Amino acid sequence: MTLVEEIHVANAAYVNHRPKGQLPLPPARKVAIVTRTASLILLSSLSIMLLQCMDARILPASAFGLQEGDAHVIRNAGGRTPEALRSLVISQQLLGTETIIVAQHTDCGMLTFENKDIHAVIHKNLHGADATHIDFLPFPNLEQNVRDDVAFLRNHELIPKTVDIHGYIYDVATGRLVPVNSE
Amino acid sequence: MTLVEEIHVANAAYVNHRPKGQLPLPPARKVAIVTRTASLILLSSLSIMLLQCMDARILPASAFGLQEGDAHVIRNAGGRTPEALRSLVISQQLLGTETIIVAQHTDCGMLTFENKDIHAVIHKNLHGADATHIDFLPFPNLEQNVRDDVAFLRNHELIPKTVDIHGYIYDVATGRLVPVNSE
Repeated sequence: MTLVEEIHVANAAYVNHRPKGQLPLPPARKVAIVTRTASLILLSSLSIMLLQCMDARILPASAFGLQEGDAHVIRNAGGRTPEALRSLVISQQLLGTETIIVAQHTDCGMLTFENKDIHAVIHKNLHGADATHIDFLPFPNLEQNVRDDVAFLRNHELIPKTVDIHGYIYDVATGRLVPVNSE
Repeated sequence: MTLVEEIHVANAAYVNHRPKGQLPLPPARKVAIVTRTASLILLSSLSIMLLQCMDARILPASAFGLQEGDAHVIRNAGGRTPEALRSLVISQQLLGTETIIVAQHTDCGMLTFENKDIHAVIHKNLHGADATHIDFLPFPNLEQNVRDDVAFLRNHELIPKTVDIHGYIYDVATGRLVPVNSE
C-alpha cells in the first residue's frame, strides 16, 4: 500500500468513526439559517491563532490539547510570522480571533542552513534553477527568532495592539512548551 | 482559566503522558552521533507534505491518520500553494519528501469574500490602514481552485516533475476526502 493509499484508508475509518457530536460546525452551534456572511460572523467565537513549524514531529492537537473548532492553526517552515501575516490578518479581521501563540521548536531544520546553502542545492539539483530571489527565512538563534517574530507582529500596523501575542519554544524531545519573554 | 492557561495545562498533561516510544526523532531512529547536517539527511525518511487550510474544524492527524513523524504539515488561510512554495521547496530539497497532498475544504471562509472586501474592513477597523498591496488569495470556486493550486506546483520550476502531487476536497461536514482530478 502506498502512503497515499494509507491516507485514503485512514480517512475512510475517520469518516465512519469521528465523534459527530463534538464537531463544532459554527452554523450548527448558533443559528439554523446559514448564509456565507452569517457563518463568518458566527466563527467569531474562535479566539486563538496557533502558529507553528511544519515539522513532522509536532502534532498541535495532542501537544496543546486542541479539539476540533478550538483554534486556527497556521504552519510553515520555521513557524515564521512574516509569511503568516496574510492568514493572521484574515483570522483576526474576518473571524475575530484575539490571541496569537507563536511556538517555534528545538532541533528545527531552519537552524541548520543559510540562504546561500539552499540556493546552491536548488541550483545543483534542479538543472541550474535560480532561486536567489527567494528568502527561505532560516535563522541562527531560536530564542532570538521567537522574540523577533513576536516583535514583528506587535509592531505591525495590520495587527491591533489589543491582540494578545505569546512566544514559546516547543521542546521536541520532551513535548514541553517554554515561554519566551520579550526583551 | 484563560484559553492560554488552558493550553498550559493541556501541555503539562501531554508532557507527562505522551507515548515516548512512538516519537520518531530521526536521530534516535537511525544514528547515535547527531550533527546538524546528519539530522537533515536522516529526515529524508519522511515522504509526505500535507497542505491544508488553517480552519479550526480540521485536525489533520485525526482526519488523515497521521502519527508524529509521518508528514510535514503546512497550513495557511485557504491551503494556498503559492504561499506554501517556500516551505514545500525546503521540505522537498532539504528533507527529501516526494509527495504533496493539497487538501482544500468545503465551507471555506476564503470563498466568502474578495480582496476589496477585506481591504475595506482593514481600512475601517484599523484607522485607515492601507492593505491594498496585499493579495489575501481568496477564491470563488473550490474545485477550480484545487486544480489551479495543483497546476501551480506542477508547472513550477522549483518543484521537480518527479514529485507526486494530489489534489483533494475535504468535506468538513462528513470528514471525507474527495479526489479532484486534473483537467
